[in-house]
Amino acid sequence: MKFFYSPNACSLGIHVLLEEIGKPYERLWVDFSKGAQYKEPYVSLNPKSKVPALLRDDGVLVTEWPAIAWYLAKTNPEVNLLPSTIDGEVRTLELLDYMIATVHMRGFTRIFRPAMFTPTIADEPAVKQTGRDIIDTGLKLMAQVLGAKAYLLGDYSIADAALFFLEHWAVTRAAVQIPPALEGHLERMRARPAVQRALAAEGLV
Amino acid sequence: MKFFYSPNACSLGIHVLLEEIGKPYERLWVDFSKGAQYKEPYVSLNPKSKVPALLRDDGVLVTEWPAIAWYLAKTNPEVNLLPSTIDGEVRTLELLDYMIATVHMRGFTRIFRPAMFTPTIADEPAVKQTGRDIIDTGLKLMAQVLGAKAYLLGDYSIADAALFFLEHWAVTRAAVQIPPALEGHLERMRARPAVQRALAAEGLV
Repeated sequence: MKFFYSPNACSLGIHVLLEEIGKPYERLWVDFSKGAQYKEPYVSLNPKSKVPALLRDDGVLVTEWPAIAWYLAKTNPEVNLLPSTIDGEVRTLELLDYMIATVHMRGFTRIFRPAMFTPTIADEPAVKQTGRDIIDTGLKLMAQVLGAKAYLLGDYSIADAALFFLEHWAVTRAAVQIPPALEGHLERMRARPAVQRALAAEGLV
Repeated sequence: MKFFYSPNACSLGIHVLLEEIGKPYERLWVDFSKGAQYKEPYVSLNPKSKVPALLRDDGVLVTEWPAIAWYLAKTNPEVNLLPSTIDGEVRTLELLDYMIATVHMRGFTRIFRPAMFTPTIADEPAVKQTGRDIIDTGLKLMAQVLGAKAYLLGDYSIADAALFFLEHWAVTRAAVQIPPALEGHLERMRARPAVQRALAAEGLV
């Protein structure tokens, strides 16, 4: 299995899940600084030109964060990364979709790549502020969901790997304050050996 | 069960699925023209202030398009709206995530609500063009996935309900050309009685 990533991209969350599972995989850095995502051989493999992507041993490529996480959880049921009830699955998807499509893609992307949103450089501060507002609302909502639990759904799940990369971005890439209730979650995540291995492999510690 | 929608919003796709299932439900219009999504009673029920949302009979609210579609498919297995294999589930999620988070939220939203992206009115045509480019790429990718099949995954599934609202938007709201391969899909969708009932109930025919 080949895992395509870029250091400190949202692929970090998938990296954590691969380390939680602990089976062998090949880690392949798609060098965004050289535009490798738009060039051969990556662009033919994944025309979406983004990471994470997972190339299965049977040659099937899986893209999109929630789909990759679902694949890893479902094919490694002994690791218990996903609730087994319909309600649990639905709640997991609801959290993932909000964290990826809204908090990441509408929030953090405005801060990391404001030029995707406006052609006017003078407007970039306003675009970034909108991003911070979306992140702030989103993380507060996640703090409410977490409540006094250790993990979002009670037991550790793929939803926590998504929340982790958002928290990590807030603290290390976006200078966004995370709600106090999430500080404990971030600490718990950082204490997990799988998280430490993923961070080390990406040169983030 | 209560279904919260706005006519011709992405809730149209969920509306189609509810009609495919054919069980009784209550349809509640959240009037965006009056800002009802930001006011009581809706904002307390769904602080995300968006549609679709599904209020289950047990009082649990389900939000996010893929999560609602998953809930409907999994709780009505006899309607066969979702493949039952792991590979089928992963492929469905991959399609849904791309269609919702990218083609809808990065593409169509730029055309429908350019002011969300730029504070400068003069830049809105550029924002809309970026939206059209994202939609164009996205629909071509969906046309490739469809190929010569009748539906995205072969058999009809929740992924087709998502593709339908994108196709319907392209044709009726965004003046975006859809790839020839998707024209047949749109026709097949429009021929389904459930689609006709949903369109009629939303005043779209």
